Amino acid sequence: MYNFEYKNPVKIVFGKGTIPNVVNEIPKNKKVLMTYGGGSIKRTGVYDQVKTALKDFDLLEFGGIEPNPHYETCMQAVELIRKEKVDYLLSVGGGSVLDATKFIAAAVLFEGSDPWDILDKPATSPVKAALPLGAVLTLPATGSEMNGNAVITRKATLEKKAFGSALVMPQFSILDPECVFTLPDRQVANGVVDAFVHVMEQYLTFDVNAPLQDRLAEAILTTLIEEGPKVLADRNDYQAAANFMWCATMALNGLIAVGVPQDWGTHLIGHELTAFHGIDHGRTLAIVLPGMMNLKRAGKKDKILQYGERIWGITEGSDQERIDATIARTIAFFESLGVPTTLPEYDVPAETIDKITFRFKESGMKFGEQRDIDYQTVEAILKDRL
Amino acid sequence: MYNFEYKNPVKIVFGKGTIPNVVNEIPKNKKVLMTYGGGSIKRTGVYDQVKTALKDFDLLEFGGIEPNPHYETCMQAVELIRKEKVDYLLSVGGGSVLDATKFIAAAVLFEGSDPWDILDKPATSPVKAALPLGAVLTLPATGSEMNGNAVITRKATLEKKAFGSALVMPQFSILDPECVFTLPDRQVANGVVDAFVHVMEQYLTFDVNAPLQDRLAEAILTTLIEEGPKVLADRNDYQAAANFMWCATMALNGLIAVGVPQDWGTHLIGHELTAFHGIDHGRTLAIVLPGMMNLKRAGKKDKILQYGERIWGITEGSDQERIDATIARTIAFFESLGVPTTLPEYDVPAETIDKITFRFKESGMKFGEQRDIDYQTVEAILKDRL
Repeated sequence: MYNFEYKNPVKIVFGKGTIPNVVNEIPKNKKVLMTYGGGSIKRTGVYDQVKTALKDFDLLEFGGIEPNPHYETCMQAVELIRKEKVDYLLSVGGGSVLDATKFIAAAVLFEGSDPWDILDKPATSPVKAALPLGAVLTLPATGSEMNGNAVITRKATLEKKAFGSALVMPQFSILDPECVFTLPDRQVANGVVDAFVHVMEQYLTFDVNAPLQDRLAEAILTTLIEEGPKVLADRNDYQAAANFMWCATMALNGLIAVGVPQDWGTHLIGHELTAFHGIDHGRTLAIVLPGMMNLKRAGKKDKILQYGERIWGITEGSDQERIDATIARTIAFFESLGVPTTLPEYDVPAETIDKITFRFKESGMKFGEQRDIDYQTVEAILKDRL
Repeated sequence: MYNFEYKNPVKIVFGKGTIPNVVNEIPKNKKVLMTYGGGSIKRTGVYDQVKTALKDFDLLEFGGIEPNPHYETCMQAVELIRKEKVDYLLSVGGGSVLDATKFIAAAVLFEGSDPWDILDKPATSPVKAALPLGAVLTLPATGSEMNGNAVITRKATLEKKAFGSALVMPQFSILDPECVFTLPDRQVANGVVDAFVHVMEQYLTFDVNAPLQDRLAEAILTTLIEEGPKVLADRNDYQAAANFMWCATMALNGLIAVGVPQDWGTHLIGHELTAFHGIDHGRTLAIVLPGMMNLKRAGKKDKILQYGERIWGITEGSDQERIDATIARTIAFFESLGVPTTLPEYDVPAETIDKITFRFKESGMKFGEQRDIDYQTVEAILKDRL
């Protein structure tokens, strides 16, 4: 395996009835801004639980953060924070609210002229300070609760960009699996796919002799395949909800990525589908991953064969036949969750492929674990999904 | 699974050539005490690497920490630290040196009259402060490099006791797998067994519907079984050494223990064998574990069957036959590493069983994941190993 460094100081508070513990995790003297999304936390009672727990705090609110959160929305929160001299952020919601909160935390203390640079020019505009933040997570999916990463969309230009900094890792994340009980099928399915593809981005690359990391990744994949359908079948199955929730966190807390190459090409391409058509993030991954596996079947061969054998029991046929069967099995899994995997099923026209290909051509980027995915590969991957 | 809290802020610096990075991890203004053991670090060159890296620090030394480190030795270091006003500890060695360093860090700032209380009366004498510490790990085994636990022996009374506190977690641990190249067979074998049994203490209990934790534990076991013999066969196999080293850390950083019951009975009994006869810690675990599995075959049935099937492929026969075969396979694995598993092979006389049983009777302790192991069970487990 490669040399690596790993440090993850996020405190996880996990289990039923743990939301009121939020009062123990925020320092007493803080002026807190609670961030949230479209208001589902009011319907589910999470909002009331948090408000009651923090009744003795100086607590402000900022709601209305959208899925694939907008830079423009975040900047409104930044303004409020500066005006009100808030010094602690509490994200109450799913990964979008938390990603927005991370960006807000960094943007408030950003010293340059334009906080968009945090996302657009990470090499020259690194995060040097951020407000402390904590999270109450209501939706297992993104893994944002145990890392320092965030993805933000600029509404004006339809650009979707990511940044990462240890300074925006939550100081704590409260994970109550009972939050899963009130999720619609679509969000559960998206969450399972999102967590699954997070693992794949760190696992389905090339072998560097890191068998423990491989098996940890496979442990998460197997458990998602087992528990995801249980959650969909019975939303009140607490144990299935808990197992799904912990899988989603473990999928992206950095641990399975230590010492191994990473891809993230499926995410980069998927982000464009969200930017142009507003397709749910998890669903874009279900579209792109099979195309990625198909087009990168040479570079990823050993790992696709290992994944097919260990996860799906595929051992018969030539290497190419096994790879075909493994891609088909992966597609079938996503579809079994109710998540379509082709572009026409989302009414994406062929010209979108041209637009996305053009963007990657303009950027000149090469990405993936071997830095060999260029705009032509992107075009081929997307055409594979027509 | 159960509710849980998890936080592990230890920074891991992993890989070949990383020891000189120690200079980046210790704050510049610190007066550092470097702790070490019997001097093997001088033969291997690790001592020189650390001294060279820290040449601009005010650096004192405290060597001579023995395996199963003595309280009495630790207290000599405490005296030196107070006299010299040291404010940072750097452990350079294996788990014994690091455990001693953790205890020293807590004992220096202990406010009670007798620091032994940290070990003997943890409920009434919790650690409230500790000096900061870091580690350069030279021997994969104990997992001490990524947790807040330590085990200390009082020479005068032959008592071996453990304590744990987040305050003694290393701020960083540097793990260079090349340190494995110079280890004798015996230490490699002990380390593999130690890490293996750490996993078993957290895994071989009863089922609480935590399939991800189970599979993460199985991932470590499988990798140890695969990589341990490679390290023994070729001490210069860097990749095998790296995989072994990372397994040992992952075995006891708390992650596979979240939300599940834990046993630790094998350790409690094993500690007595070390206290009375000085048997290497790992070897005591190889003796006790098969007896624990045999005597607790009812309470641990489901997990022994799962372990037997998933790790050793044992699926034939009645439940009792499968359990017998699983215990036999575990013994065979330890013996294949050159680690004997019965008391006579270590010249332990039968009267030692009486002495150990008496100690557990006197203490009135009941332990194990179901708190049902008493002195009579201890006696039966040890007699099983005659």
